[in-house]
Amino acid sequence: MITTTCCTVVAQLGLPFGSSLSSLCLTRPNKKPSLFTSCCSSVSKNVGASAADSKHVVERWPEYIPNKLPDKNYVRIFDTTLRDGEQAPGAALTPPQKLEIARQLAKLRVDIMEVGFPGSSEEEFETVKTIAKTVGNEVDEETGYVPVICALARCKHRDIEAVWEAVKYAKRPSILIFISTSDIHMKHKLKKTKEEVIEMAASSIRFAKNLGFNDIQLGCEDAGRSDKEFLCKILGEAIKAGATTMNMADTVGINMPEEFGELVSYLKANTPGIDDVVLSVHCHNDLGVATANAIAGVCAGARQVDVTVNGIGERCGNAPLEEVVMALKCRGAYLMNGVYTRTDIRQIMATSKMVQEYTGFYVQPHKPIVGANSFFHESSDEYDGCSNILQDMDY
Amino acid sequence: MITTTCCTVVAQLGLPFGSSLSSLCLTRPNKKPSLFTSCCSSVSKNVGASAADSKHVVERWPEYIPNKLPDKNYVRIFDTTLRDGEQAPGAALTPPQKLEIARQLAKLRVDIMEVGFPGSSEEEFETVKTIAKTVGNEVDEETGYVPVICALARCKHRDIEAVWEAVKYAKRPSILIFISTSDIHMKHKLKKTKEEVIEMAASSIRFAKNLGFNDIQLGCEDAGRSDKEFLCKILGEAIKAGATTMNMADTVGINMPEEFGELVSYLKANTPGIDDVVLSVHCHNDLGVATANAIAGVCAGARQVDVTVNGIGERCGNAPLEEVVMALKCRGAYLMNGVYTRTDIRQIMATSKMVQEYTGFYVQPHKPIVGANSFFHESSDEYDGCSNILQDMDY
Repeated sequence: MITTTCCTVVAQLGLPFGSSLSSLCLTRPNKKPSLFTSCCSSVSKNVGASAADSKHVVERWPEYIPNKLPDKNYVRIFDTTLRDGEQAPGAALTPPQKLEIARQLAKLRVDIMEVGFPGSSEEEFETVKTIAKTVGNEVDEETGYVPVICALARCKHRDIEAVWEAVKYAKRPSILIFISTSDIHMKHKLKKTKEEVIEMAASSIRFAKNLGFNDIQLGCEDAGRSDKEFLCKILGEAIKAGATTMNMADTVGINMPEEFGELVSYLKANTPGIDDVVLSVHCHNDLGVATANAIAGVCAGARQVDVTVNGIGERCGNAPLEEVVMALKCRGAYLMNGVYTRTDIRQIMATSKMVQEYTGFYVQPHKPIVGANSFFHESSDEYDGCSNILQDMDY
Repeated sequence: MITTTCCTVVAQLGLPFGSSLSSLCLTRPNKKPSLFTSCCSSVSKNVGASAADSKHVVERWPEYIPNKLPDKNYVRIFDTTLRDGEQAPGAALTPPQKLEIARQLAKLRVDIMEVGFPGSSEEEFETVKTIAKTVGNEVDEETGYVPVICALARCKHRDIEAVWEAVKYAKRPSILIFISTSDIHMKHKLKKTKEEVIEMAASSIRFAKNLGFNDIQLGCEDAGRSDKEFLCKILGEAIKAGATTMNMADTVGINMPEEFGELVSYLKANTPGIDDVVLSVHCHNDLGVATANAIAGVCAGARQVDVTVNGIGERCGNAPLEEVVMALKCRGAYLMNGVYTRTDIRQIMATSKMVQEYTGFYVQPHKPIVGANSFFHESSDEYDGCSNILQDMDY
């Protein structure tokens, strides 16, 4: 696998980039605490890894441990094109299309793919099962990569059982159990008390564990408008019950980046046991800042990002995979102390085109990264994408 | 003019929103300094103004003073659809289309419209002149609103003269003179020293002033990669020379929101005379965070935002007007201590549709605010947009 980063590309091109590089590195002028300094780790290690990558060294895929990342700067890409993306009215896919997209997502090297909601219909159940049996078992010989196959469940035994029966065939089966945690949702949608909601989540996690899952995500719906103290409480109980990833959703797409980063920081600082699990962010794009919210989450300590190809999804969709991945690729080393993904950016355009064709959701010409007018789009055969962004351009 | 904000809409609908409102207000959990606390002023005043707006009180448009805002929370909307937007390959507009869009932008109540680059061609010159003579003189009787008509110039006398000859017919003529300020641009594009660049900017501003301009913007191309100390120096000299707005561009679309906000904070803190002018941000969307960068700029003290309708523009375009305006409308009061615009959001959809039709740049269905699947799109006749985002939605 070839990966390039901003710095290696610039170095390769021999651009006279001295002082501009330092401005990219950003020595912060005012010494106030910064989100960009909160995600720790040394840059040098990652820069070294990138240099090695650029020499076409094939690295083995790191061992997958559900609640633990291979290193503190690794960011998991959780693709939900086939679940949250396909939920957009008019984006429905046929089972063969879903299978083909799943296979392409594996080429793209997403860490986890959420491929459906098996409890919703027999066809959905069968599709998830097929993907689990096929793509979920296709181990890349060279690297050892195989995607985690995840599916969605409400806090209902029959949903959870359906997920298990569908994904258990995968080498790495996973479940995302979600429940609303905001006051407005708990009161009017669930009609449950906080204590009841905690018990629903914890017992569902225990039920999933008893079925055989060792990779369990708790999705907090409307986390972006939830009471933070309550979130810490439910996450703490979920961790005790056996959940391995905590997935925080800005379901209504109302958060702003600093606000969302602060939520993640607060949860990291105040949830018992949070360091023993992975924290994930799930951002909707109603106000146009989903990518920035996801990045803010990563800067604050999240190490999994939920994304969809081309940003498709209900209403204004989800954080687009290509934007999040390229932002981390171009700026992770310098601005975020070395965070990185292992997405194969050479596959972004092919994946984008396939998803456009199959869903009918065509991107606008000025769509970042994958739009027809993007420099990255024009240069994707050269596998860089960063150097072009740094070219001489006009005001 | 009717404007509504998040809080007033919620109040009108009588939603049981008590505790959720407090989560929107966001009592910051950790006491670290925050971008969101840096733009000062009281919320109560603005909330009061919104309540008045919702009673259909027609307010007079505030007096326009180029280097001074009507109050410290007012954010000017500088629309560049007809200049930077139209620069996108394939987006070229005919002169009558430009005039019609300019008229629609006036209905939208943008504070300033940049309508072209008169030095580039005779046709462009004539179009800018026509807009200045017509739209630039159409004062709204009820409110006194009339848009500022601005046009672009390089640091060249003939460009500046062309702008003056084209826009001088407007009630409020303005010029945006731009020059590159990053090391890489100055060395390889301009082939000038820092001192020469400062002199080019200052003498161009003086030249514009002598022609008759009292509203002069200095646009720093590639400010996002520029040496901050140098930026402070050139801005200081530009202010001395008579510039009234400092316009900072992330020309290559490479900045991340916190980084860009820190740039604005640094300039606010370290530029002599900066409090006597307006600071503006001009963000490109190559990595998908232009809206968030613009918001971060506002939170750090910028009080003018450059935008285009539907976010059109070269490559991946500019910060979309509709996203910036709606983010400020929905969250300005609570998250940003009361910043606001006077854009008439009822005109967003009509403007979006006109620009799509005339440029051929159709937005994707999941485009925030104006896409076919956006809740705002569906509800634009009701003039709200915030309440819908806050509805009960699924994970």
